[in-house]
Amino acid sequence: MDLEDKLLMMPGPVPVAPRILRAMSKPMINHRSMEFSKIYDDCRKSLKKIFNTNNDIFVISGSGTAAMEAAIGCTLGKNDSIVAVENGKFGERFKIIASRYGKVIPAEFEWGESIDLDLVEDKLSEGAKAIAMVHNETSTGILNPAEDIGKLAKKYDALFIMDGVTSIGGDEVMVDKWGVDIAVVGSQKCIGAPPGLSMISVSEKAFDLMEGVDSVPYYSDLKAYKKSADKELTQTPYTPAIPLFYGLQESLNIIMEEGMDARINRHRTFAMAVRKAMESMDIEMFPSLNEYSGYSNTVSAMKAPESINGNDLKREMLERGIIIAGGQAHLSGKIFRIGNMGNINANSLLTTLQSLETVLHKHGHITDFGAGIEAASDVLDKVL
Amino acid sequence: MDLEDKLLMMPGPVPVAPRILRAMSKPMINHRSMEFSKIYDDCRKSLKKIFNTNNDIFVISGSGTAAMEAAIGCTLGKNDSIVAVENGKFGERFKIIASRYGKVIPAEFEWGESIDLDLVEDKLSEGAKAIAMVHNETSTGILNPAEDIGKLAKKYDALFIMDGVTSIGGDEVMVDKWGVDIAVVGSQKCIGAPPGLSMISVSEKAFDLMEGVDSVPYYSDLKAYKKSADKELTQTPYTPAIPLFYGLQESLNIIMEEGMDARINRHRTFAMAVRKAMESMDIEMFPSLNEYSGYSNTVSAMKAPESINGNDLKREMLERGIIIAGGQAHLSGKIFRIGNMGNINANSLLTTLQSLETVLHKHGHITDFGAGIEAASDVLDKVL
Repeated sequence: MDLEDKLLMMPGPVPVAPRILRAMSKPMINHRSMEFSKIYDDCRKSLKKIFNTNNDIFVISGSGTAAMEAAIGCTLGKNDSIVAVENGKFGERFKIIASRYGKVIPAEFEWGESIDLDLVEDKLSEGAKAIAMVHNETSTGILNPAEDIGKLAKKYDALFIMDGVTSIGGDEVMVDKWGVDIAVVGSQKCIGAPPGLSMISVSEKAFDLMEGVDSVPYYSDLKAYKKSADKELTQTPYTPAIPLFYGLQESLNIIMEEGMDARINRHRTFAMAVRKAMESMDIEMFPSLNEYSGYSNTVSAMKAPESINGNDLKREMLERGIIIAGGQAHLSGKIFRIGNMGNINANSLLTTLQSLETVLHKHGHITDFGAGIEAASDVLDKVL
Repeated sequence: MDLEDKLLMMPGPVPVAPRILRAMSKPMINHRSMEFSKIYDDCRKSLKKIFNTNNDIFVISGSGTAAMEAAIGCTLGKNDSIVAVENGKFGERFKIIASRYGKVIPAEFEWGESIDLDLVEDKLSEGAKAIAMVHNETSTGILNPAEDIGKLAKKYDALFIMDGVTSIGGDEVMVDKWGVDIAVVGSQKCIGAPPGLSMISVSEKAFDLMEGVDSVPYYSDLKAYKKSADKELTQTPYTPAIPLFYGLQESLNIIMEEGMDARINRHRTFAMAVRKAMESMDIEMFPSLNEYSGYSNTVSAMKAPESINGNDLKREMLERGIIIAGGQAHLSGKIFRIGNMGNINANSLLTTLQSLETVLHKHGHITDFGAGIEAASDVLDKVL
């Protein structure tokens, strides 16, 4: 099967709509021109609506990890401490980045387990300057309690740094209402654009607390981003990845046309369809929920059944032209993940579930065809 | 005049060839797949030829500044010192980045002045771990003596970190022969690709000296790049900007088809044509050369004539649809710059010089038309 015929159903990069691909093939422009300034302003305006924030928003030419480093590196001095919440790979990444800049107070849970808010509060009460948490933990398909963490951060007067890399643009994120001081998203997830850009919102409080921080990274120095954005012609401090800005602008146009409410509903319905299909095919969800957590609405993580290892499942799906994800690090082989981020449609999801049924049937996990598709279709019909 | 009709003759971003633009509009792929691995391997192979090195080469999804930070941040510990050579804005940037990571021994010259090798040697003899220099100083159009600095670095056993952002791919750069431990280039300059990627070569010695370095940046951690590149399926540590890799691969194909010798000859001839045109129009070059320096072969910096300020000249050229550059920081208004990087052709250069003649004539700097074009054509005919 030709590369371009494969269906990307992993949790990013996501398939990119043809009109976004076309937007990227426009000629280059001067990055210090009125033309670029307009594109950047336009993107920032739409992003504020998607983030639900009045905070400043910047676009970094680099992956979500660059923005995570910006958030941590600009606010955390050598002697500052940060509570790093971890219940998956990206929570772990926050912890690792933080350990390069300041003192980490780890709040660790098994990957896939829910966060215990009491434990987090205990850690916060030790007097941390900030708390960092991943909202939608891509590695385990769990939705962490951002609003509750926001309240705790407020109670202990800590900065709240949130990785919304795979929630913003696909699920509800209320940056201002939840009190998120710094929120981060990647272009290649729910935003539906190609990889290479990350977007970051920064509160005034966060900027205030950057004063006096030592060893701030240079490329991802948020004060430099603010200074350049505040110029008469809005710009970035270093040369931006122009074609990706063209693509981002078009992706945001698509989001504005669909409307965030409809987009969130679509993502939630698609994820529900995956879960119902799994239930009907006797496949267990991976995350262990508590009253504060939820299943991710943008990526579903399932336990591999006894009859087939998660990596073999992924490989057999790939042979059928469908790219899903396995588990990362120690979860390799134990789980498999299906993304429903960005601009994918119901047919792509149904094709994926259809192939999954076939693979599961081949390995004897299910005896009859159709139950998964029927369960998913029942849910999907609501948004068709 | 429509945006897309304007001619980019600034020192990057450069106009991007249509076949590169088309390459970028291919669908997304899994960045942990064989397909991506092949693209990355292919790019690294071509880049080694362009850098003239057997060292490891990595591609960072970020501008040249991200790669400059990688070079400095990974090798310079808090207590390490580095000689930062400065005779322009990008030399200054090296100094600023270095000051965030370690101790800077500045070797400062007026912007546009040539480097005094004796002074640099004095500084090196203070026992620095490394020396950082910009090869082709984009801000002033001067070509700094990389080979000589390489010899000094060797003599004092210092790492040689070189910014080749606007020389590599357009002018001769011999990384191994000159003893450059870390060399950096940006995608949107002589390579001819869109902005957003930077490429960096790293010697074994540089990797050895990274051991034990504290406060290494995370996103641009070269050891992480090496670890990922050494995997069975070559990859990047964080999600790469896939469309820009498609574009880079096609840009490198174009370079391999032209051949580096022909490409260097073309760049040198074009820059010579600009200089001859300036001479014939009584416009003075900005840099002050000594026996070790040269005029840049990829960007020419000229003093603005008395009759028109550099910024006005730039604006009037823009009105004629041609984008040239002014001076940066304190050079604003005092100089103007014309780039000849990447895949631009002789007609673009002649159009630029033609418009410049018109503007200079309008302002009374020249009385007759034609001298500039004649001088340039005489030179250009050699490579047509």
